[in-house]
Amino acid sequence: MITLWELEGKGGRRYSLFSWRARMALRHKGLDFATQPVCLSDKKAIEFSSGKTVPIIRDNDTVVRDSWKIAEYLEDRYPQAPALFGGAIGRGVSQSFNAWVDRAVVPAMMQAIVFDVHERVAPQDEAYLRESMERVLRKTLEATRAERVEAVKRLGRILEPMQAALKRQLFVCGASPAYADYILFSVFQWARVMSPDEVLAPEDPLFAWRGRMLELFGGFAREVPTA
Amino acid sequence: MITLWELEGKGGRRYSLFSWRARMALRHKGLDFATQPVCLSDKKAIEFSSGKTVPIIRDNDTVVRDSWKIAEYLEDRYPQAPALFGGAIGRGVSQSFNAWVDRAVVPAMMQAIVFDVHERVAPQDEAYLRESMERVLRKTLEATRAERVEAVKRLGRILEPMQAALKRQLFVCGASPAYADYILFSVFQWARVMSPDEVLAPEDPLFAWRGRMLELFGGFAREVPTA
Repeated sequence: MITLWELEGKGGRRYSLFSWRARMALRHKGLDFATQPVCLSDKKAIEFSSGKTVPIIRDNDTVVRDSWKIAEYLEDRYPQAPALFGGAIGRGVSQSFNAWVDRAVVPAMMQAIVFDVHERVAPQDEAYLRESMERVLRKTLEATRAERVEAVKRLGRILEPMQAALKRQLFVCGASPAYADYILFSVFQWARVMSPDEVLAPEDPLFAWRGRMLELFGGFAREVPTA
Repeated sequence: MITLWELEGKGGRRYSLFSWRARMALRHKGLDFATQPVCLSDKKAIEFSSGKTVPIIRDNDTVVRDSWKIAEYLEDRYPQAPALFGGAIGRGVSQSFNAWVDRAVVPAMMQAIVFDVHERVAPQDEAYLRESMERVLRKTLEATRAERVEAVKRLGRILEPMQAALKRQLFVCGASPAYADYILFSVFQWARVMSPDEVLAPEDPLFAWRGRMLELFGGFAREVPTA
């Protein structure tokens, strides 16, 4: 049995974007798992992992932390299940794609939704989130709220290459979804779970792609508490 | 025998960035090829391809145009030779990566080097290049020259995710180079062939990666006429 540690917000929301990568990867591999909610500020609860962040999985006696390492672990440990990377080249390009999502897309989405995220984390995490985010962003959460329209536009410009790619193929990974789709999807699922505002226009190819992602595994990502 | 049509500038420079993708892909597959230089403004010379741009390859009776389609053709036609994509997932993610390079990296590099490119195209292409580039960029080539320092900084910000990726692995595609490496490399080779200025700092992980790319196939990309 596999256990996944992930963040829990108000109303049972599971909002860790990096944990969503692990969630989708586990489902892709057809693996059952139980989840263990933790608070953002409760580092003691995950001390056993030797790290300070989720996701963490425990698969029998093996503990793996960090979404990328979890994906690699699942691919190597369960090679007979559907592939996340499909070989060395797919793994390498997926890691480069991961770097782009983490360093270009995530910060842009953060600017757009962090105010909403703050309103939906667990009450005991509110001060921690505000302090850490305002330090990273070098502005108050209220300032990000005021600049939201511009932030969504900037996000759209950063995502423009994916609009083009998804006009040519159904998924980031081609005709079927694989790990690079979960990397990008996690950012939109984070927004969906924590922010009531829509960041994609209906005519955006990313809108239809997100819809396809929400249908996977029997609507697995659709059927969760959201904003 | 395979023939590759590509752009020729002053001093025998082969500067089409998209043709460099085809060049590297052909070498990766271990295929010999002859090149056929054409001028940017001479659309009649490539009319046979039913298109207006290089690269074009002819492999016996098969004509393929567009760098992405050429890569797909080579992968499918020569499956026993070293893989460019390594399967469906690798191909899909490489296409998404291609969209990012073409829509984020290429325009940023263009702003930085277009003035130098203009000075090194064939004399009969100078007016054509100026007219088409000034229309796309909505500014004069001289204005791009004046804004070069800022353009190189913006390019650096766009490339930051690749700096991070190349700290973790030797190539975009992992431990060995494959097609996604050639996609990104083509942009730097374009700059190297057409601009005397350096856009990468020696401590940038992209600098060492570009050096590794230049060593491939017996220094194939290093040993050409450059700026």
